[in-house]
Amino acid sequence: MANEAPRPFRYPVPELGALPEDIRARILAVQEKAGFVPNVFLLLARRPEEFRAFVAYHDALMEKREGLTAAEREMIVVAVSAAHSCQYCVVAHGAILRVRAKDPQVADLVATNYRKAGLLPRQRAMLDYALKVATQSHLVGDEDHQALAQAGFTEDEAWDIGAIAAFFSMSNRLANATDLRPNPEFHMLGRR
Amino acid sequence: MANEAPRPFRYPVPELGALPEDIRARILAVQEKAGFVPNVFLLLARRPEEFRAFVAYHDALMEKREGLTAAEREMIVVAVSAAHSCQYCVVAHGAILRVRAKDPQVADLVATNYRKAGLLPRQRAMLDYALKVATQSHLVGDEDHQALAQAGFTEDEAWDIGAIAAFFSMSNRLANATDLRPNPEFHMLGRR
Amino acid sequence: MANEAPRPFRYPVPELGALPEDIRARILAVQEKAGFVPNVFLLLARRPEEFRAFVAYHDALMEKREGLTAAEREMIVVAVSAAHSCQYCVVAHGAILRVRAKDPQVADLVATNYRKAGLLPRQRAMLDYALKVATQSHLVGDEDHQALAQAGFTEDEAWDIGAIAAFFSMSNRLANATDLRPNPEFHMLGRR
Amino acid sequence: MANEAPRPFRYPVPELGALPEDIRARILAVQEKAGFVPNVFLLLARRPEEFRAFVAYHDALMEKREGLTAAEREMIVVAVSAAHSCQYCVVAHGAILRVRAKDPQVADLVATNYRKAGLLPRQRAMLDYALKVATQSHLVGDEDHQALAQAGFTEDEAWDIGAIAAFFSMSNRLANATDLRPNPEFHMLGRR
Amino acid sequence: MANEAPRPFRYPVPELGALPEDIRARILAVQEKAGFVPNVFLLLARRPEEFRAFVAYHDALMEKREGLTAAEREMIVVAVSAAHSCQYCVVAHGAILRVRAKDPQVADLVATNYRKAGLLPRQRAMLDYALKVATQSHLVGDEDHQALAQAGFTEDEAWDIGAIAAFFSMSNRLANATDLRPNPEFHMLGRR
Amino acid sequence: MANEAPRPFRYPVPELGALPEDIRARILAVQEKAGFVPNVFLLLARRPEEFRAFVAYHDALMEKREGLTAAEREMIVVAVSAAHSCQYCVVAHGAILRVRAKDPQVADLVATNYRKAGLLPRQRAMLDYALKVATQSHLVGDEDHQALAQAGFTEDEAWDIGAIAAFFSMSNRLANATDLRPNPEFHMLGRR
Repeated sequence: MANEAPRPFRYPVPELGALPEDIRARILAVQEKAGFVPNVFLLLARRPEEFRAFVAYHDALMEKREGLTAAEREMIVVAVSAAHSCQYCVVAHGAILRVRAKDPQVADLVATNYRKAGLLPRQRAMLDYALKVATQSHLVGDEDHQALAQAGFTEDEAWDIGAIAAFFSMSNRLANATDLRPNPEFHMLGRR
Repeated sequence: MANEAPRPFRYPVPELGALPEDIRARILAVQEKAGFVPNVFLLLARRPEEFRAFVAYHDALMEKREGLTAAEREMIVVAVSAAHSCQYCVVAHGAILRVRAKDPQVADLVATNYRKAGLLPRQRAMLDYALKVATQSHLVGDEDHQALAQAGFTEDEAWDIGAIAAFFSMSNRLANATDLRPNPEFHMLGRR
Repeated sequence: MANEAPRPFRYPVPELGALPEDIRARILAVQEKAGFVPNVFLLLARRPEEFRAFVAYHDALMEKREGLTAAEREMIVVAVSAAHSCQYCVVAHGAILRVRAKDPQVADLVATNYRKAGLLPRQRAMLDYALKVATQSHLVGDEDHQALAQAGFTEDEAWDIGAIAAFFSMSNRLANATDLRPNPEFHMLGRR
Repeated sequence: MANEAPRPFRYPVPELGALPEDIRARILAVQEKAGFVPNVFLLLARRPEEFRAFVAYHDALMEKREGLTAAEREMIVVAVSAAHSCQYCVVAHGAILRVRAKDPQVADLVATNYRKAGLLPRQRAMLDYALKVATQSHLVGDEDHQALAQAGFTEDEAWDIGAIAAFFSMSNRLANATDLRPNPEFHMLGRR
Repeated sequence: MANEAPRPFRYPVPELGALPEDIRARILAVQEKAGFVPNVFLLLARRPEEFRAFVAYHDALMEKREGLTAAEREMIVVAVSAAHSCQYCVVAHGAILRVRAKDPQVADLVATNYRKAGLLPRQRAMLDYALKVATQSHLVGDEDHQALAQAGFTEDEAWDIGAIAAFFSMSNRLANATDLRPNPEFHMLGRR
Repeated sequence: MANEAPRPFRYPVPELGALPEDIRARILAVQEKAGFVPNVFLLLARRPEEFRAFVAYHDALMEKREGLTAAEREMIVVAVSAAHSCQYCVVAHGAILRVRAKDPQVADLVATNYRKAGLLPRQRAMLDYALKVATQSHLVGDEDHQALAQAGFTEDEAWDIGAIAAFFSMSNRLANATDLRPNPEFHMLGRR
């Protein structure tokens, strides 16, 4: 269907061997776990300081295990990334959502329209807030925080939802500006 | 992940046995071919006259084999349906696109952002026009038709692209207004 | 005022004599009743199968006489077509609305801003729903269907409102993509 | 069709006899000429100073006879007012446009979509600029003024186009905020 | 930082000596009071009739001292002008707001996001209405006027809020279309 | 003018003494340099890991001295933050821009409308790209990168512009979601 040998992104792919030791180690660890190197790591490796800050920020928000579940965190990522038409993030985090939620269909449903994805009221409230932060943050006010509280979220969980929505608003833009493409492997992950 | 037994749509599901003969026959034929009854058929069966007109219109545009290929027609459907956040249409026609294009990834890429899906210039021009018809038709003008001509499309192919975009602008709205959900079977079709 | 001999649409006008018998018969019947051939019939005649499906679909939604009145159905068409800046549909169906409502001013008021057209609360609710289906269908939810129920609409009437809004979302796009112009006769119909 | 005795606007209608002499005189003069008192005069009479400034500003822009023709000035008003969904201004100035252009159809065409109204290239350029001033004035730049110059407009005509678009952006908002309704007489003016 | 000698606006600057007496007098009076001639006066002087109408209208709305305070009126101007990205109006009226409110920070806060400017509930309601008139006037309805009444505004104050929002919707467009630049003096006014 | 004791943000202010040593040290260093503690540091201190990642990312992009100048980097921040109506970021980084550009007016001009701020063509191209990344990143394509190249930017500078736009798209959302208010001191910085 496609007419171009798919480049993973707009910038040259760095040589693994030429990267700083800590970055190469991180990349090899991901490769060992996933079976392939997600393109985002190769993209950011061009900028070691930015790579380290990005990964640290990502892990602080996404690897945390109090409050929101791992699947809920990925659900936020997929819904926010779809609102920004970010191909890499929807496909890659759609895969992670399928795995974490042990649900082969939820990612496609959330990516297309989270309001019609049959989610729990708590999850619907979570995504309503996340999407408002992602697309109209200047309108966020007390009523939005009250809605989260009524859905059972603590102040710290509200922070997490907003921070994940904000962080992926950044990474969606980085991916879109650099034409970052999803690795083919992501499409099938978690579908069985 | 979900808290509701997933209803296929907002209206009651009609009894197959109570449907007019021609409609039941069409539904059974689809079931035989696909292995399941796509929910859109059950939804529209509530209204036999609308069912017949919808199916006739659909087939006139989508089963035609001159000009645009079958895969190109489905590509238009997926891109337009994504622009309207139509869950049923993106998932169901995403499956058909995978099958017709023999490409397990193209549907996810087109649904998220057709501009970054590595398409041929001809296909990019086709989708630029289809999306303009779907989302800003009052701005369509000579320059858009000239762009199609330069990409090699005939006047009749231009009609087809616009008509498919228009027809699915209708069916996306029908699906969204009735909460039509995709059958689970669609998610895996054509992924291998 | 104008500098072009007004073409009725972007495509060549077909010869009546060369059309399939059923299509010519339908066109002649309309001409007999209206005194002229509305341009949309000449446009669609280029594609006989699409002509038949379009007309059958249109009649199933617009000629029905249970539930919504004929004037209410046209009111939906005018409001939806104005939202899509469809010249042909606003002018032609504005004329039909004037005739069916026996009100020479309502069409101009609904076309410009149905919210300020002095309509009954029931009609206002009907158009609020129709416009949401036409312009933001992905946001339609239970609350919209409840609002219709509170305004006294049955489930079947809700379907009709949504289906008319969806059908004309299609035909507005067809008209806009093909530069379909209204026949001059429509402008004065129903004004006395 | 309507359920309310149509009030001409949200505020009480002032007594003609209680108005300052100059304002009453102006209103009577308009009544003599038109055969009725356009509602906008009654609305603004509540505020004599604003009435005088509004009328003086309006006349400076709309009664001027160098440069743009009277019909072109009204064409701008109709297109801008349609973009703001201003019922009073579209209906009232649509009538004046029909009279000044001696064209019974142009107002309906311009109100729905000026891009498809068969206008002269000069008029199309004029309305493209007017609409950009009305709806995206922060993006107006050198290229827009160059396009006007290429279409043959002088610097003073460019000012007039922009100023008329700006003035009616104000009066559309006044009318919308006060629910100003068009007098029934406007609907038929200039249609024969 | 800038590469151009800053022109005050797109049109030639008129000679003070060549202006009609009343206009020159008004300009000199402003200069005497402010210490400089705000560019808007020089711009409008090109068109004496429009100058007089503009100033009369402005003064009727902005110099009035019943109802809204002087600071509240300027607050409306700043919020509306920011919504239209009008550089001249935000900077010039920001200065006047600082002076009238005796608050060196309020203008920057209102210009960026009045919802987060720590305003009184009355002022928030005032600006919610003003912004709806400025950006979505076709949606203004009874509920908006009821909200103003609940916040303690009379019908005449509601008129003032709407009229100021409408007037500056005009003057923002005039400034944007003519590239009117703020005088450097405005930036520091009222900051101590 | 304001009715609330201004809280610096929605969450409780942490005790400096209770913070991890490295974070307290960083805050004290900033305070020493600026004379006050910018509220963003107190906000993020609630989350030490996120604080560290945020500051590291910020410094990697904003303290870099090859390619873009310090003033240009701040210009991007102000323009992007204004597009997101982020009060904290516009006021705080507006101050830094004034200082770094040694220009007391540029920040107000860029915040209101960078297109009319009298910038160099190179800076205009830089901000056009930054704003497209910030507000429509899914449309960024080859033509945008070519425009940067024609304006003299290298591939690495293009990355910096995009990355700064993306990073502040995140921090604007964090500030908006937490009601982060600018310190009063920022308003006057760099105005003399």
